[in-house]
Amino acid sequence: MRWWGWGEDGHAGSLSAAAEALLRDELGVDPEARRPPVPFEQVSAPDAGLPDSLRERLGAAVGAEHVRDDRETRIAHAVGRSYPDLVRIRSGDASSAPDAVVLPGSAEQVAAVLAACAEERVAVVPFGGGTSVVGGVEPVRDGFAAAISLDLSRVSATVEVDETSLTARLDAGLFGPEAERRLGEAGVTLGHFPQSFEYSTVGGWVATRSAGQASTGYGRIDALVEAVRCVTPAGELGTRAVPASAAGPSLRELVVGSEGVLGVICEATVRVRPAPRARRYEGWSFASFAEGCDAFRVMEQAGAAAEVCRLSDEDETRLTMAMASSGGTAEKLGKRYLRMRGHERGCLAIVGFEGEEEEIEDRRRRTAALLRAGGGVALGRRPGDAWRRGRYAGPYLRDELLDRGVLGETLETATSWSNLGALHEAVREALRAALGARGTPPLVMCHVSHLYASGASLYFTFLARQEEDALAQWRAAKTAASEAIMAGGGTITHHHAIGRDHRHWLETESGALGVEVLRAAKERLDPAGIMNPGKLLP
Amino acid sequence: MRWWGWGEDGHAGSLSAAAEALLRDELGVDPEARRPPVPFEQVSAPDAGLPDSLRERLGAAVGAEHVRDDRETRIAHAVGRSYPDLVRIRSGDASSAPDAVVLPGSAEQVAAVLAACAEERVAVVPFGGGTSVVGGVEPVRDGFAAAISLDLSRVSATVEVDETSLTARLDAGLFGPEAERRLGEAGVTLGHFPQSFEYSTVGGWVATRSAGQASTGYGRIDALVEAVRCVTPAGELGTRAVPASAAGPSLRELVVGSEGVLGVICEATVRVRPAPRARRYEGWSFASFAEGCDAFRVMEQAGAAAEVCRLSDEDETRLTMAMASSGGTAEKLGKRYLRMRGHERGCLAIVGFEGEEEEIEDRRRRTAALLRAGGGVALGRRPGDAWRRGRYAGPYLRDELLDRGVLGETLETATSWSNLGALHEAVREALRAALGARGTPPLVMCHVSHLYASGASLYFTFLARQEEDALAQWRAAKTAASEAIMAGGGTITHHHAIGRDHRHWLETESGALGVEVLRAAKERLDPAGIMNPGKLLP
Repeated sequence: MRWWGWGEDGHAGSLSAAAEALLRDELGVDPEARRPPVPFEQVSAPDAGLPDSLRERLGAAVGAEHVRDDRETRIAHAVGRSYPDLVRIRSGDASSAPDAVVLPGSAEQVAAVLAACAEERVAVVPFGGGTSVVGGVEPVRDGFAAAISLDLSRVSATVEVDETSLTARLDAGLFGPEAERRLGEAGVTLGHFPQSFEYSTVGGWVATRSAGQASTGYGRIDALVEAVRCVTPAGELGTRAVPASAAGPSLRELVVGSEGVLGVICEATVRVRPAPRARRYEGWSFASFAEGCDAFRVMEQAGAAAEVCRLSDEDETRLTMAMASSGGTAEKLGKRYLRMRGHERGCLAIVGFEGEEEEIEDRRRRTAALLRAGGGVALGRRPGDAWRRGRYAGPYLRDELLDRGVLGETLETATSWSNLGALHEAVREALRAALGARGTPPLVMCHVSHLYASGASLYFTFLARQEEDALAQWRAAKTAASEAIMAGGGTITHHHAIGRDHRHWLETESGALGVEVLRAAKERLDPAGIMNPGKLLP
Repeated sequence: MRWWGWGEDGHAGSLSAAAEALLRDELGVDPEARRPPVPFEQVSAPDAGLPDSLRERLGAAVGAEHVRDDRETRIAHAVGRSYPDLVRIRSGDASSAPDAVVLPGSAEQVAAVLAACAEERVAVVPFGGGTSVVGGVEPVRDGFAAAISLDLSRVSATVEVDETSLTARLDAGLFGPEAERRLGEAGVTLGHFPQSFEYSTVGGWVATRSAGQASTGYGRIDALVEAVRCVTPAGELGTRAVPASAAGPSLRELVVGSEGVLGVICEATVRVRPAPRARRYEGWSFASFAEGCDAFRVMEQAGAAAEVCRLSDEDETRLTMAMASSGGTAEKLGKRYLRMRGHERGCLAIVGFEGEEEEIEDRRRRTAALLRAGGGVALGRRPGDAWRRGRYAGPYLRDELLDRGVLGETLETATSWSNLGALHEAVREALRAALGARGTPPLVMCHVSHLYASGASLYFTFLARQEEDALAQWRAAKTAASEAIMAGGGTITHHHAIGRDHRHWLETESGALGVEVLRAAKERLDPAGIMNPGKLLP
């Protein structure tokens, strides 16, 4: 990944003229102004300060060539990919760079690294693909002799498929595309496609309770993990790969979502499905977000949801079309359709089926009948195919916005169907009030993208003209939205995890005693407190 | 419930002549011999020894009339309903009777009781319906000043349905029939029907990770619980009722299955479904257990399983028909069908759909095609309806067997589809070897009754002539089966929980470090160690 943003240069998009006009007209952004990242040479990172004795032990454990403290590697592991992360790194602030990046090749090497670091009181930050948007992979050195980033990318050899039981044992360091490629060789898929898919890892997904874009159909990662192998400073925590058990509290569910503070997830056994041989993604339009939510609820509760189900609110529908980088293509066509059908201020939905050709057609008939009964108008495949092509493009767009001095941030929650409309409104209001009060009134968009029988996620994107103190502006917006979510009965995070940025709200989410229980587990597994300090636990 | 066995006298069945003959011919049971329970007057319980100061505090907390230490109440709370429990209580051994039975009326009263007991070092045993078959509700007094049974049956006022989100907040003390009756008034069902349904409670289900007979369709209780409210000696542990969250490890999954050792589950928010307006239960026959398992696997992995899916192995099929108490009815008809179809030594399956009339017919068509393709022969509705009528009768039959000096016990596990056949054989062999060596060769039956995409449960029933030392005989069989399950890659329990009887194997199941983590959680929530001592943790 490029050090100052998302992904690789070759894949970056660009803003359309319409998007530029929108930023100027609706946010007051100066179309000529640019805020590029500082040149790499100007990035400031502290001197690497790994104690010599430790470097020797680490080298003995993983091989000297896998203990790196060159400037490039350290800066690449300094921050994740959240908005505040990028604001800081683009400005040249890599003060959080680790003293070294250590790349173990196996769970046994991970154990050796943890033993050495526990003895020398060196903080260990597990690092998968580094795509955290909540500060989950940023090294914290406070009170420690040093901090290392433990890059799992070499723990990536094993993909062992049980084709009868439809499970697969996966090494944690496998990146999304490689995991799917190797699963595909056995004719199966995990079906887990978060927006970060190309640059995130199996271990990262499990550690953060990730949900993919097709999780309505395939299930979120916590529903797909059958067993985990987690190496902690106190030893190995492993769970049996059985389909279900009544053997006490679920230790698997303690490891899933533990964000590196208990140990290092080295392996997961996951449920897989036959790789789909057919796909059908299509667009639908609803007259309003409320109407669309209701139709989605009925569909989901009837067991008729597609793999991908996504409904944009009125503002997201309008702005997505305007912002679309590829002017004149499918998005525009979709817009024309909508106007024709009298849904000019309506909401766009994407409904995507994956499976066998005939099975998809059968399912689609039932789903379409329900959506039509709920007021939906079918827009055909173009909007669906366009969405699918652009499904991983969002973070590139954020780089473009940052370059133009635009705050572009996302946050997400989930709540019950009966509370969905109220929470949607409360968060929008909170963002508008917080940013409006600073003289940078935002555009706030939202979509529902993960359906459950009892409720759904709400995924907000907001844009505003960037203030000089971009971090203070971001913090004000983030705090306002988070307080609104907590007061409004949502969860502080549906699939981004807690990390550093949500820590403050974990006690509201889980209660003081709940936090105490997590602390007790951490103290037992990580007595020296070296595992990913400053994350998850307040 | 009758103090010496299951349920109420009015509902008890009786053994058919064919069953009597089978016990005589295959197990060598003397048809005339009887081992009735001792008269109630001869049951021996220790004197109630609640410290006066505590009795006063408890009375102040819950009302003096809800602190009971009469003989009947204490003996009714002395043991659960496992085979060894019944052997002991029928012999007049109520040495485990609690010093008092306390019936709080609310979560607040539960908190007050725990506070008082923690101060006076009195053990607290949460008690729902008392149907544990693993020793989960038996008071343990060792090292404590006294032990009370905390009967939750008065915490049963609330059934609050969110009809839009299809969730319901339920008080823990609600018994199955009452919970379903009140949910039914709102047009919904939890769909949770364990064999103990009539005498077990919501709280008990959650505390033990219960799975109902229709869990293949409705989901096991752990999949249905969205939030819990658990009162611990250290305070209240509550989780948010949201459909999904990425806010760290799941505390809900720490409370679910905690078997009263962390605190008292006072309330659960569960997912419900529209109450079915139609049901279609039918019988199927397969030439062999292996063939049937394979057909069930294909059906489940295709998403075509019915709410109830149950497949008996060859021995269970044969013996169930012979043991059926209602000679000359549906079971016999089923037997005739099987013979006609050339499946004389085959396996009987029950496939039961619940939902809307038309929807069921659609689903059934697809399921039936898959089962037929897998070698299944449809036997029509009679075997299905007969199974449904008798679905709660099993434990009554056990009383009849005990009366005749027959060991009748069940145990269960789950494993992956690819391992199912080997584990089935290993457990059968272990039971045969262990009991054969004692001169009491058993009849061992098994069925698959809970399907998952990655595997299934195996539920074993075994019968043998009872030895004089019935407990030693039981322990030998239980140990052999449990060791075979652990060595064979199963879970020590699929839905009966750990309790006292499976404690020894928890470390094999969860690892030494896993047990340590549970201990750490317990120490934080229950510093005085008063919560259900002797259960779950080895």
